[in-house]
Amino acid sequence: MRAVDIIAKKRDGQALSQAEIQWFIENYTRGDLPDYQAAALLMAILLRGMEREEIFHLTSIMAASGEQLDLSDIIPYAVDKHSSGGVGDKTTLVVLPLVAACGVPAAKMSGRGLGISGGTLDKLDAIPGLNSKLTIDEFRSLAQKNGIVLCGQTGDLAPADGKLYALRDVTATVPSLPLIASSIMSKKLAAGANGIVLDVKVGVGAFMTTLEDARALAQMMVDIGADAGRDMIAVISDMNQPLGVAIGNALEVVEAVEVLQGGGPADFREHCLHVAGLMLRLAGRGQRWTDMAEIREFLVQRLEGGQALDKLRQMIAAQGGDTRVLDNPLLLPQARIIETMVAERSGYISQIAADKIGMAAFELGAGREKKTDSIDLAVGVKVHFKVGDYVKEGAPLITIFVNDPERLKRAQFHLQQAVWYSDTPVEPLPLFYDTIYGSK
Amino acid sequence: MRAVDIIAKKRDGQALSQAEIQWFIENYTRGDLPDYQAAALLMAILLRGMEREEIFHLTSIMAASGEQLDLSDIIPYAVDKHSSGGVGDKTTLVVLPLVAACGVPAAKMSGRGLGISGGTLDKLDAIPGLNSKLTIDEFRSLAQKNGIVLCGQTGDLAPADGKLYALRDVTATVPSLPLIASSIMSKKLAAGANGIVLDVKVGVGAFMTTLEDARALAQMMVDIGADAGRDMIAVISDMNQPLGVAIGNALEVVEAVEVLQGGGPADFREHCLHVAGLMLRLAGRGQRWTDMAEIREFLVQRLEGGQALDKLRQMIAAQGGDTRVLDNPLLLPQARIIETMVAERSGYISQIAADKIGMAAFELGAGREKKTDSIDLAVGVKVHFKVGDYVKEGAPLITIFVNDPERLKRAQFHLQQAVWYSDTPVEPLPLFYDTIYGSK
Repeated sequence: MRAVDIIAKKRDGQALSQAEIQWFIENYTRGDLPDYQAAALLMAILLRGMEREEIFHLTSIMAASGEQLDLSDIIPYAVDKHSSGGVGDKTTLVVLPLVAACGVPAAKMSGRGLGISGGTLDKLDAIPGLNSKLTIDEFRSLAQKNGIVLCGQTGDLAPADGKLYALRDVTATVPSLPLIASSIMSKKLAAGANGIVLDVKVGVGAFMTTLEDARALAQMMVDIGADAGRDMIAVISDMNQPLGVAIGNALEVVEAVEVLQGGGPADFREHCLHVAGLMLRLAGRGQRWTDMAEIREFLVQRLEGGQALDKLRQMIAAQGGDTRVLDNPLLLPQARIIETMVAERSGYISQIAADKIGMAAFELGAGREKKTDSIDLAVGVKVHFKVGDYVKEGAPLITIFVNDPERLKRAQFHLQQAVWYSDTPVEPLPLFYDTIYGSK
Repeated sequence: MRAVDIIAKKRDGQALSQAEIQWFIENYTRGDLPDYQAAALLMAILLRGMEREEIFHLTSIMAASGEQLDLSDIIPYAVDKHSSGGVGDKTTLVVLPLVAACGVPAAKMSGRGLGISGGTLDKLDAIPGLNSKLTIDEFRSLAQKNGIVLCGQTGDLAPADGKLYALRDVTATVPSLPLIASSIMSKKLAAGANGIVLDVKVGVGAFMTTLEDARALAQMMVDIGADAGRDMIAVISDMNQPLGVAIGNALEVVEAVEVLQGGGPADFREHCLHVAGLMLRLAGRGQRWTDMAEIREFLVQRLEGGQALDKLRQMIAAQGGDTRVLDNPLLLPQARIIETMVAERSGYISQIAADKIGMAAFELGAGREKKTDSIDLAVGVKVHFKVGDYVKEGAPLITIFVNDPERLKRAQFHLQQAVWYSDTPVEPLPLFYDTIYGSK
């Protein structure tokens, strides 16, 4: 085989065979093909697309490029979840202990935030002492012992994806649905889950800004998982406004704990109950947990009975973290300056632009531009209203947590543009737009 | 500026500005941008296209990347010609001395053959002693002294094109009309001609196989030249069957000399008269040589009067070549084995596939696969009939000149498939399909 022939085939809009994709990816990952040939192929894929079969092969080959976890000897059925990233999305911190409290082992590897999107690993860092750098042996052992473990992705998982992603970043080939879907799913397949719930965000604060694109991405990822023999469900959820109230790493940990204590913001609690419910549904494999109303009831009991919070406590303790933060949030990183932004006028909130709120949190220091940037775990904002709410002029609208007055100013610039008002009633935004089930 | 933003702009189908193209090409040529970013941009250009203005800027910037000849101090008006490459195309060897014999200085840089396409430089190599590696000073001096010079392109001309072409070759980004047109024209612009006649071949033996593509390429190159202030004419000429009778380097020199002596195959002679006529027309700039019939008459006189042949003699002598080859073709490289292929049946010739004839010559050793391959100047074929001719079974159809019996066998395989017969009369192929004039 010759790389140039494979590039030409995709350039001309033809589907690549499994053998061709395998030859190219394996040689590239080994360093036997130069970056420029991979760059040309990536651009051809972006502009010509890929068929379902090609995307499956690409994903499987990237998943097989490194270590592939198999938890079947220690867990009867492993569930995982993945969010495409958003503003205020601390769902994992709630649903992982919640499903674990239902007797479904939850072993998950998470990522860090980039740009305006937060990442679960950064939120974990806010918990003093917690170790999120586990070896695969430690990961397996905690999954088996406690039925709950949450850590960073090891570099041994899907190294082909790591190399290709770095190249996509500098060749303007990131925004390709087949490449996004295969990149995400290669890591999910390698992590060894039997069932995966995908939370694909859509809106101004998400990577996908149209419902059409979000649906296409969700369908593609669900197809990949199904073709790989995994049970798949994807939800399309709203990211036009932030999820919940808190945005910022330590602030989000507090909010997640509130939900696990039976409280928390209504929208975020509902979001968690739905995602956790779908994870149970997958884990029940048609035998248990078939009725979503019953599942919800079951989950609410686990929240209100404290079992879910206990599971998080167990997880933090097992990974060396300070469990006292669950009872005393002041032990988490605290910002020195707290500022309140009030409503400029009375009216119905018509928009709380998630992208601008995310930019504000980024400016406060909660996010990073490059993977190597350090962040401030204490800072962030709390947005006290939702689209559709009525506010009176002067009511506290947003609380800002910050350590640097200069950063405060830059954040306020974005926050002022984020909130829009209307004189007439405004419909609340839905939490979910669609659910997509996998089928081979 | 950032390379990734420029790639993304083209990826999304937008036109690049002059500043963006200049920044990218200059940085890439200097080695300040990596090959993988150029590869991604090339693939995006191939799949998204370029507008007339972008193509002009790209060409001008590549032309300006190295030395740019200016012959205006030594020649009032410099004419040049370029062929997109074909089988049996030895036009330059005739038209250059022919226009020079009309008092129009002809100073041209040529290239080598690749694949089934021949190149003028290889044909020059067949003339013992002839030096085609001239410095720019030698080139200028001969142009001024004799009004005729023909040599290889110096590496100082359009180095950006050289670097980009090498990358295109290994990234499957060769077949893009804007990239082909800008590559050819960057060298033509840098070579300093005031008027350029483009001979764009179309057919099974040409790079462009459809009239639509050939017209589009011709129009693009004519537009580039016009935008750069050059006088431009393009002809679309047939390359479904070989041009003339001889294919192979020394054999083609002999055929070119035959035309300069007033003889030669009718189709090739007509082709040369037309191309040379258009060169005169450009050089006349609307003052002289406006009527093509008069021009033809004038050119025929120069052929039959021997002035054109004298001009070639002067050129060969000035560049150190053995001028005796003009009177004694046996002084050119000779093949040891001469084989005749006869007509399998009686009938009208319906096809003499130029690609298969070209492959046969390639197999005999007349062509090269890679730029660094050496070739056999003596070998080749003579095809004694044209499409539309009637042949009788057993008539000598093709003469094969070869040095190696194994190569003969491989060539015969292609030749047997090249010729098709018909029981009913077949229309001859036209020499030209279209003429395209430049306008700004």
